[in-house]
Order: sequence, then structure tokens, then C-alpha cells
Amino acid sequence: MQKTKQLSYKLVNIDGGFWYKLQKLNSNVIVNSVYKRFKETGRFDALKCSWKEGDKNKPNIFWDSDVAKWIEGVAYILQKEQNDELMDIVDKAIDTIEENQDVNGYFNSYFSVIEPENIFMRRDDHELYCAGHLIEAAVAYFEATGKDKFLQMMCRYADHIDKVFRIDGSADFITPGHEELELALIRLYKVTNEKRYLELSKFFIDKRGANDKDVFTSFGNAKYAQDHLPVREQTTAEGHSVRAVYLYNAMVDIAKSYDDNELFDACKAIFSNIIEKRMYITGGIGSTADGEAFTIDYDLPNQTAYAETCAALGLALFSQKMLLCEQSAVYADIAELAVYNGFLSGLSLDGKAFFYENPLEINPSLRERNSSTIKPARYPIMERKEVFDCSCCPPNIVRFIASIGNMLYSYSDDALFVNQYMESHTHFQKTEITQTTNYPVDGEIVIKYKGDFKTIAVRIPSWCTSFTINKEYNLKDGYAYIHVCAEDSIHLELDMPVQLIESNPKVQENSGRVAVKRGPIVYCLEGVDNGDNLRDVSINLDADFSVCEESSFTLPVLYTMGYRRLPDKQDSLYAPATKNRRSQKLKFIPYAFFANMGATEMIVWILKN
Amino acid sequence: MQKTKQLSYKLVNIDGGFWYKLQKLNSNVIVNSVYKRFKETGRFDALKCSWKEGDKNKPNIFWDSDVAKWIEGVAYILQKEQNDELMDIVDKAIDTIEENQDVNGYFNSYFSVIEPENIFMRRDDHELYCAGHLIEAAVAYFEATGKDKFLQMMCRYADHIDKVFRIDGSADFITPGHEELELALIRLYKVTNEKRYLELSKFFIDKRGANDKDVFTSFGNAKYAQDHLPVREQTTAEGHSVRAVYLYNAMVDIAKSYDDNELFDACKAIFSNIIEKRMYITGGIGSTADGEAFTIDYDLPNQTAYAETCAALGLALFSQKMLLCEQSAVYADIAELAVYNGFLSGLSLDGKAFFYENPLEINPSLRERNSSTIKPARYPIMERKEVFDCSCCPPNIVRFIASIGNMLYSYSDDALFVNQYMESHTHFQKTEITQTTNYPVDGEIVIKYKGDFKTIAVRIPSWCTSFTINKEYNLKDGYAYIHVCAEDSIHLELDMPVQLIESNPKVQENSGRVAVKRGPIVYCLEGVDNGDNLRDVSINLDADFSVCEESSFTLPVLYTMGYRRLPDKQDSLYAPATKNRRSQKLKFIPYAFFANMGATEMIVWILKN
Repeated sequence: MQKTKQLSYKLVNIDGGFWYKLQKLNSNVIVNSVYKRFKETGRFDALKCSWKEGDKNKPNIFWDSDVAKWIEGVAYILQKEQNDELMDIVDKAIDTIEENQDVNGYFNSYFSVIEPENIFMRRDDHELYCAGHLIEAAVAYFEATGKDKFLQMMCRYADHIDKVFRIDGSADFITPGHEELELALIRLYKVTNEKRYLELSKFFIDKRGANDKDVFTSFGNAKYAQDHLPVREQTTAEGHSVRAVYLYNAMVDIAKSYDDNELFDACKAIFSNIIEKRMYITGGIGSTADGEAFTIDYDLPNQTAYAETCAALGLALFSQKMLLCEQSAVYADIAELAVYNGFLSGLSLDGKAFFYENPLEINPSLRERNSSTIKPARYPIMERKEVFDCSCCPPNIVRFIASIGNMLYSYSDDALFVNQYMESHTHFQKTEITQTTNYPVDGEIVIKYKGDFKTIAVRIPSWCTSFTINKEYNLKDGYAYIHVCAEDSIHLELDMPVQLIESNPKVQENSGRVAVKRGPIVYCLEGVDNGDNLRDVSINLDADFSVCEESSFTLPVLYTMGYRRLPDKQDSLYAPATKNRRSQKLKFIPYAFFANMGATEMIVWILKN
Repeated sequence: MQKTKQLSYKLVNIDGGFWYKLQKLNSNVIVNSVYKRFKETGRFDALKCSWKEGDKNKPNIFWDSDVAKWIEGVAYILQKEQNDELMDIVDKAIDTIEENQDVNGYFNSYFSVIEPENIFMRRDDHELYCAGHLIEAAVAYFEATGKDKFLQMMCRYADHIDKVFRIDGSADFITPGHEELELALIRLYKVTNEKRYLELSKFFIDKRGANDKDVFTSFGNAKYAQDHLPVREQTTAEGHSVRAVYLYNAMVDIAKSYDDNELFDACKAIFSNIIEKRMYITGGIGSTADGEAFTIDYDLPNQTAYAETCAALGLALFSQKMLLCEQSAVYADIAELAVYNGFLSGLSLDGKAFFYENPLEINPSLRERNSSTIKPARYPIMERKEVFDCSCCPPNIVRFIASIGNMLYSYSDDALFVNQYMESHTHFQKTEITQTTNYPVDGEIVIKYKGDFKTIAVRIPSWCTSFTINKEYNLKDGYAYIHVCAEDSIHLELDMPVQLIESNPKVQENSGRVAVKRGPIVYCLEGVDNGDNLRDVSINLDADFSVCEESSFTLPVLYTMGYRRLPDKQDSLYAPATKNRRSQKLKFIPYAFFANMGATEMIVWILKN
């Protein structure tokens, strides 16, 4: 391992460009919109633990996690700007949780009220997952505000879990059915310095897939919850994709904390399996709705892609953690890819609506198939919704956008690594660093630097085949290592031409097709802009693209000339193939912005001529 | 309507070539193989109506129809060749049916034994469908052997049905849940000249979709059994595809018998809807396993194609009946297409195994997806089986191959129409006609003729864009009308180049892809010949093909040069698109012969360069 430390978002001020606008949208719109939907659906009231049969809004097994992720997001927002209203909501929620926390530390608004007899009996039902998110929220809120009540409460809860699961072994199962607590405990350890939390996390990691007690009654497939093998023997990404990446996050943390190279090797194998065989070009993962799961290598259907927003986020976090163990640009590249495409597609342009699933192709006409058959085929929804029954993705968006600054820098004793490019200003001990850039609108980045580091290493993304730097540099693992003075300035220019990308021939879904990409941004065509029947639109490999900024989007759109076949005169079903076609101006928009103009056709993989 | 009469297979002797070999295989192998499987699974014993709880081989609602179709096939074989063994089996089966036929004429080996209280109460359960097949078998057996016992028995059954359904209206439903009886009654009318059978058929046709009593409890979708509209108002092919085409067959017969142009217009609209929007290039119909049904226009997925063997056969029969009402080559073209491709693919080369479903693409590796997900995707089986629980297709193959001679000729008062080309010799009243040809191995046909007809009209298939005839002719609706002398000879040469066919741009599944066809034969690539990952194989639109006869097949195979992409050096999942590819010799085999070399990849629609 080549360990580095992450420079906290707390020290990074994003003060312009794409992410500044998104963070403003987050604190002005998204966080409030999610709160309103959670409030009106009863998620906050559930914390009172007073629901009784006949009341509306019956608590659900994952509601605590929804509220917790929202609180965590608010904490990150409060770190950067004052918002008394939000803080008040959070404080009241914490008070309510405190009032209803068991003397032994336990808190779960579902099990306490609906199934108290089943506490720690039902591995499938998100109980420890909720605990994990409450712990993450408590850590974040303490770090942002200095208020430690919630943190103390959650320490008591963690201690109770430690007793029940590790010391007494009195629960009906051994490891969490939905991973999350493992990574939360590591955060709790880092803020409290109480090693037992790290040890409990390691206990869960060590026992997973290595005991006979953990079985899924509701699924019956050990891969579903990554129970098929001891984690150190796992080499492929399996099962429910969000469960999986949350586990992999914790595995990296434990590997790093314990210098556990065997575990880190498993993380590397799984990471490679994902990015070389099981990931959409958008960074989306989990290609089937059946179990919201990974399937097999190269099985990446576009229209039925599940590619959950939370899974793309989890992959970005997993990548970022890998990067802190091995300074290779591939990790930052994948984090960037997942964030700008498969994660951000989960959010509407107005900040009020969300996708849970992120398909790479939509054909509304196929939905009509349902009308004449018995069992309808299952497709993702075509327009974002304000809230879901299982609404894990919206608050995940809130907390991730607010803490995006974590992705920018990492450092070792003598080098500072610039992992992501965003207009920003950062103070860190004696170091001051400013990025002036429109990235990813273009690839020009000016880095102004003051401080003690002898070396600054800037990432050269894998999509970039041509770049200039105003300094001498050594290229290694995708980073340009530059010797810097105590006060220095780096001009980095990453050429960002439009690229046509093809997938591995083994991805049968995309044979004969190319995706349009510029820098880290994947593009798509929509029916509303380009007419329907997009599968029959083709482009040349040497097509010229024009890059245009439009007021409706914070990223450029692309125009090029493409083609459509002419139907033959009789409009017959089958006819001898001809080269007849007509040219058509095509408008590509960033994939993340699809479905903001209503339900319409959409396609990422375009036929190539 | 421009009515013509069909020249019966009884007068047509196929004495060489493709169909001669197939008819020999039928009488030597297929008919015996189907019998053995039906015997050992209890289908013949069920006729004894003596099954009781605890016995093996519990009778099934569709078993009578399986036996009946097999008897019908035997009848057609006996018409052409003596086979005492087969005749003995049939006679014994008829005796058994007679012993167990109710005094009122009713016979059903399932309902009599298992659910006597539900006789004529359960529309979903194939009761009248079985009656229809028993009637067809009785008609065929009488016509082939002159033995009329079975026919008399079935007349009594038909009379009973007439009383219960039409006269008394005492059944729990009005029209058959699975159509078949309608067309059988018309055959019964033609052989007995008893008009009440025709009228009962018309009654069922008139009442379908025009009453409130016929509902499907098990499906709840009126389209499933073509109940959504009165049949004269139906314009699209809907629901269960075999039910549908059996209905359409009867509709044409009734339209022709009653000069019912409104009904014939409905038949024309439905026929057009099928061939212009809802038919695979193989003539397969019914694109989804969900309800074994038609779906929506242009929805023709290849890997999950249902395209039941019986449905392709039913389409061929429907087309043939349309041809007898309107002398246009399109009907004979579609019959030919469906027979040589989507129907014959149901049969293994050794004559012992069968496909129920006929996909247009197979990727065995995708089946592994099941291992890591919860609900497996549904795909057709990859190798033919000797018998199915629902084994309607095998005996349908027996009866259709034995009676293929029906497809060759039709006639009006002054013209003889040559609809299909097969090496054969035909005596018909004062007419003698011989076809000498290797068709469809090549397109050369010599027709020797003696007789009274002034005109012979030979079909110019729609796939044929260049042909020569040694006589003057007038071309009309796909037929070359030739004035002939009392003794004459026609040399017809149909050019049969390999053609690359594309589908309508609206068939999204096939965008950027072409199918290889020569004459009426659709070709495919198999993994066993060409390596796996066939979706990534491409060909040029101007590719040269060589046509080769191989001893393993009765139709030629095709060779050409195609291409495969080279994986990039890192074998990465996504990479900039290049034109790098390697050329590869490709072997195309007739689609109907796929899956005779084990489970392997197969594809019809090939990427075009």
C-alpha cells in the first residue's frame, strides 16, 4: 500500500463553476425538497416511536437511514454556511431520538414500535444499516457543529451493538444483512479514537461469508449479500450492488487501518472486476433489477439497467478510498466518471426530483407491450420522482454533493496530490492552494500554490491523450509529479476532444455501437431533441462535433451530423438492405441531464457507420 | 374474393428432392418417435379413461389433441403408403375412444375422468380444442382409409356440441377458449355436407368478442383469446399466437363459404398487420413467452422470441387459405417463408427431437446470469427435446409434413396456379403435371403439363428480382400467367442470389443489422462453426457468398468473409473506437437447421459494416 491522507472537504472551499452551482442548489433546494417529502411521508414523526395501528404513515425498516443521511447532508452544509432553520430541525430530531433511545443504547424507530420481539433477529431488515447511517450522521454533525450529544448517543448504541454481536454473540445473526455499519464504525473510531469500534468493524468484515449462521431467508442466494465467501477470498463484485460497494468501502478502510494486504488484494481484485467487466460507461453498477444486483461479466443491458444512484455513489467512494491506499489515477478517474454520470443522473435539473434507477436507453413505445401480454416486462421509470417508498438515493445526493470537496486532494509527507479539478480555494496548515478552472466545461486548470510540499502531483485523466503543463514533470500511474517552489503556479491544459468510445466486444448489447464522451462526461441523445427511433440513428467514426454552451445546462451540449435510414417505399417489415439514408443534425446532451424534458426516448450507445 | 380451389395433397406425389426426403423421414422416424414418447407418457392410455388417483401419468387437458394430431398425421401417411402397424395403432385408439365415448357423443379423456363436474364449464381448459382436433383426425382418417367409424363418432360429438352450445346455450361459456373447433367443423361439413357443422362454426365466429359471458379467469386480458372485439372488427393480430392463427384460419373459411366480405376484410387487415409489423423474418410469430403471444407492432426481440412452431405452421395454413380467396403471391410467399424457416426449425435433423420455441438468437453465456440474481430471466431452451409436457408441436409437424402437397396447386375454372415448387408428379382429372426441380436448392423448375387448362400461372416469389420463362407471360400479383397448349412445357428459372435483408427501422432490435437469405431460406451463424460472441461479427453489404452443398444438410450452406473487432491490448471494458478488425471466414447454415450440433451461440441478424 502507498497510503495517503484525504484532505477534508472542511478545508476545501468550492467557490465557482459547476460544483459551486450544484452546492448552492443543494443547500437552497435539494435539502429542503428532500426534507419536505420526508416530513410529509412521516419519516421524521416516526422518530417519536409513537405510531400505533390505525395511524397513517406506518414506519418502515429503512426510514431511520433516510433521516440519518439527510442529517449528515445538513451537517456538511452547516460546515460551510449558517442555516439556523436546518440546524433547528436536526437538533429537534436528535432530541426526539434521545427521548426514544433505549437505556441500553438501542434505537430503531421501526423495530422498537412494530416488531420489538424481533430486535436483532432479522438480518434482512436493515436494522444495523440504519444504525450505521445514524452513526455517520452523528459523526458528521459533531464535526460540523461541535455539538456532541448525538455522537455520545450513538457511541452508546455502538457499544450496545458491540456487546450483543461481538462480546455476547446473542443476536440471531452475526454480520449485517445490508452493509453500512462497518464503514460507519470506522468513522466513529476516527473521531472518538476508541479502538473497539474499529475492532467491531473488523469483526463484521472477518465473519462475513465465514460463518454458517448468516442466511437470507428472503432471497436464498448467498451472493445477494456478499455471503458466498470470506471477504478475503472474494474476487468478483456480487449481489445487491449497494450492499456490495458499502462492504468494499469498509474493506478498504480495514485493510488500510490494519495494513492487511490480503484484504487489500481482495479489494483490488473486486475493483478490477467492476471496472473491467461489470460497470456501465456511466459508472453505473448493478445491471439487473432482480435483486438490484451485479450479474455476470459483460452483462450490461441498457434499457433494463438498474444502475442505482446510490451504487454509483458507493463506487465513487470505494474508488476514492482505494486511491488513498494506492496513488493511481484509475481510482480518481472512476470516481470522477461515476460522479459526473451515473450518480448525477439521479438528480433533476431543478433539484427536486430523483432517479433511483438510471437506464442507458429508454424507449417509451416498448412500454405499450404491457397492454397485450400477461406479465409485463420490467423497465425503469422514465421521469424522476420527488420521493420513493424506498428513498435512499435523494438524501445520499444531499450528503455527497455537500461533501464533494473530499475528492479534491490527498497528501503524503512530501507530496500533495490533486485528484479532482474544481474551481476552489483551500487552506491547509501552512498550505494554500487555489484552482482556477471551468472544468469539466473545458480542461484548462491553473493551480496557485503556497506551502511546504516539495511535490505536487496532478492527475492526468485516462481519457486525456494530450496535455500540456508549464513545468517539468514525471508521469507515473496517471499523475504528473511536479517539483514546486514554496510559491508556485501550475498551468495544466487537458485537451478535451469529443471521443467515440466502444465497449469490449464481449458486451453484446453494444456491438456495432459507440458512446459519445467528452472529458469525463458521457453524452446521450433524447427523442425530444432528435426524434424517435434513436436506435436507428448512426454516426461516422470521424464525425465533427461542435461544443456549445446552452443556458439550460451547466455543461456543454454537442452537435454533429448523423444519419437515419430511409424506410423503403412500402414501409415493409423486411427488404433488401441498401445504403439509403438521410443526414440529420444530432444534439447530444450530458447523460446526467436526461429526462428533464418529460418522458422521451433516450440512448447512449449510438450505431456507428 | 377471387376464389380458387385447393388441389388436395392426395393427388400430389412428391417423388424427389427436399420434401421427398422429409416425408420419408416423417414416415420412417418422426411419426414413430412421437408415438413412442406419447405412448410412454400415458397419452394413449389416457384414452381408456380409467386413470385413478395414485396412478402415474395423470391425464392432461390437452392430451386428446396430441393423440388426435398424431392420428391425423398417420392418416396422411397412410394415404401415400401402406403401414399396417400405424393403422393398427390408430384403429385400436379409435376403438378405445369409442368404448369411452358418452352416449350423448361427448369424449374427453381429461374432463370425463378428472373433472366430470366441470364439463363445458371451464373455457380456459382446451376442451373444445381437443374436440376440434379429434374431428380433424376423424375427417382425415376417413378420407385416407375410407373407414368411417371414427367420423361417425365425431359427428355425434359435434352434434352434442351443437346442442349444448348453439341450440340450448347450456354451457358455461359461449365460444372456445382455444380456437380450433371452428376450423375443424368446416372440414367436417365439407366431408359430410351437413350444413349444421358449418353453421356451428359460423356461430362461434360470430359470437367471439361479441358476448359478455366469455371471460378468461386465468388471464384477465381479453386479447389473450381474441375476445377483445367482434372478429369482424379486429384488425390486428392479438394474444396467444396459436389461438389467434387457428381463429384466422376459420375466419377465412367462413368468409369464403358465406361470401362474407366484411369478414374477409378483417382477415386481410390482420394478415397485413402480421406480415408488415409482427412477424419475424423466419415467419415466426408471437414474440413473447408471456402468454405465448403477439405483443405490439415492431416488437420482435430475437433472444427471447417465442415464435412457437405451431404458430408458424398456423400462419402457413392461414396464408394458404387466404391464397384460395385472393390469388396474390404474397400469401404463397409467406406460407413458404414460414414453412422453410420458423416451422421446420421445430424439427431436429434426425427427426426425433423438437423445438416448441424458435429464438432467432442464442447466447448460452447469458444463461449464467441466473446464478447471481434472484429471478432468472426467461430464455427458450437451446436444444430440441423429444417430448414436452405440452407437446402440441411434434404431432403438428407429423401431420403438416405428410400433407405438404396441399400447398402446391390451386385452380379456378380456366387456370391452374402453381403456388409452390417441389419435385413432384400430379394427376388431377384429365390433367397431368410434373415438376422437375431441386428447389429450393436452386431456382430452376421445369413443369411438364398435359390437360385442359388454358392458363398456367406460376408464382414469382417476392424475393426473386430476376427470372426467365421460356414462354410469353403476363405478370399479375406475383404470378406469371402463361397461355398453355394441351401438352406443354414451362422452363422457369428463378435467380436465387444471396440477399442481405434489413428490417424496418422501427424494429429496434435489428438496427444496424442484416439477415442473410437465399431464396426462401433464412440463414444463421452458429458458434460451433464461427466461434462465440457472434453479435460482434460483421459483414459488408457487398460481401461475396459461395453456395456449397454439404452432405450433412439437405439445403446448401453459405460461406463468406466477415469481420470481428480486435479487443484492445488491455482487453478493457471501454476504449476509444477504432477501425481495427480481423477478417474471418463465416459459415452460414439454414436457420431451420440450427442447434443440431449441441447448445451453441446462434444469430440471424448480423452486424453490417
